[in-house]
Amino acid sequence: MDKKLDTFPVSARNKVRLMRQRGSYDKKLVYSILDSALLCNVGYVIDGQPYVTPTAFWREQNHLYWHGSSASRALIAQSKGIPVCLTVSHVDGLVIARSGFHSSVNYRSVMAFGQASLVEDEDHKRRAMDVYVDRFVPGRTSANRAATDKELQATKLLSMDIEEASAKVRVGMPVDDDEDYALPVWAGVVNFKTLVAGISPDPKNLPDVSVPPGIAVYAEGRMVDETLSAIYDGDTTSSHG
Amino acid sequence: MDKKLDTFPVSARNKVRLMRQRGSYDKKLVYSILDSALLCNVGYVIDGQPYVTPTAFWREQNHLYWHGSSASRALIAQSKGIPVCLTVSHVDGLVIARSGFHSSVNYRSVMAFGQASLVEDEDHKRRAMDVYVDRFVPGRTSANRAATDKELQATKLLSMDIEEASAKVRVGMPVDDDEDYALPVWAGVVNFKTLVAGISPDPKNLPDVSVPPGIAVYAEGRMVDETLSAIYDGDTTSSHG
Repeated sequence: MDKKLDTFPVSARNKVRLMRQRGSYDKKLVYSILDSALLCNVGYVIDGQPYVTPTAFWREQNHLYWHGSSASRALIAQSKGIPVCLTVSHVDGLVIARSGFHSSVNYRSVMAFGQASLVEDEDHKRRAMDVYVDRFVPGRTSANRAATDKELQATKLLSMDIEEASAKVRVGMPVDDDEDYALPVWAGVVNFKTLVAGISPDPKNLPDVSVPPGIAVYAEGRMVDETLSAIYDGDTTSSHG
Repeated sequence: MDKKLDTFPVSARNKVRLMRQRGSYDKKLVYSILDSALLCNVGYVIDGQPYVTPTAFWREQNHLYWHGSSASRALIAQSKGIPVCLTVSHVDGLVIARSGFHSSVNYRSVMAFGQASLVEDEDHKRRAMDVYVDRFVPGRTSANRAATDKELQATKLLSMDIEEASAKVRVGMPVDDDEDYALPVWAGVVNFKTLVAGISPDPKNLPDVSVPPGIAVYAEGRMVDETLSAIYDGDTTSSHG
């Protein structure tokens, strides 16, 4: 396959300059990091001031979507088509080296760049909002009370075509200076995991409702990133596959 | 106590406009959300383009610190004293309402605003870097091979006095429209937890080294946010006490 189709173009904006061995422009890797996350951090500028807003997002092909209240200052600004940077990061552990200098963090992150644009077409908006709901809870759209026109009007939907992106990943043990391995100092990695910690039913649920399969996919103890990826890929069983 | 000392000033920049019941300017709350996190997302602007970089950070009183390579484009730009926004967020769960509109996320987040500034004083820099190491692994500075002058020169340390900040927190069950509670639809919360998933010793450790107390504080199964808060507060036992 044409390599161009598999990787994002590289410019001054997304070029990984430091620790280049950790960087990648591979679309598959970028998408997989994005699709295993619930929240991103949207960076944008209003009157020269940077803002970073954590927000739920979802992906369709090369487009990222996020939404919020029509009254949101962030979304009103972004509706004007300003440049944004969407960043996602997973923290996998603390890397304890034999010196402060080589101590680090294990992580998987993506920075994605593009221009925000407001989705104004009503059908597109309604369809995308359904994709959003089903992306996190498969099949949920058909169970939910449908969105009203008033609710759609009260919601702004933003979209961004990913023009450029880079992924950065660090895994594994510390990499110390050769001579430091002779030091009698413990080194290693403290691993972190984000898990499903159980499901809490609303006490106001009607007595005869049960947990639907789209919720049961969040099995207690399952990794959240792995669950979100599996749902994204259409695997809606609650097993670890 | 004077309320002014307990809360951050409110301006157009940090004012919580929407879902105001979720917002707070309380310093204690803002600090507690910051101190329970390892990574923040730093937002900054270069030539009108926003960037959001995930990075480790730490707090001393009302100052936030972060660091990186002296060759980093981000840190070179920030060294000039530009405005930055540091955002931290913890994702606590997926809130499944009876409509897409009222579905949400449980989270704790902080947006902190100020001007980045480069720490150039060598003593200040060396001391702050030690605080950084000990903040995540208590007592580690005295075990590590000391930082060399070359390493200090290769590192840029940035600092920001928090001029304004806001916290935003959502907890608990979905809040549905009154009439929707009559629908035979399961609603509730899928809870997420970030845990210590164990410690992996470096296979290159000398045979007689053992896990020091500053690492043992990361007991398997312990919540990462709770562990980081406890370390910050000087509690370096590995219990949940």
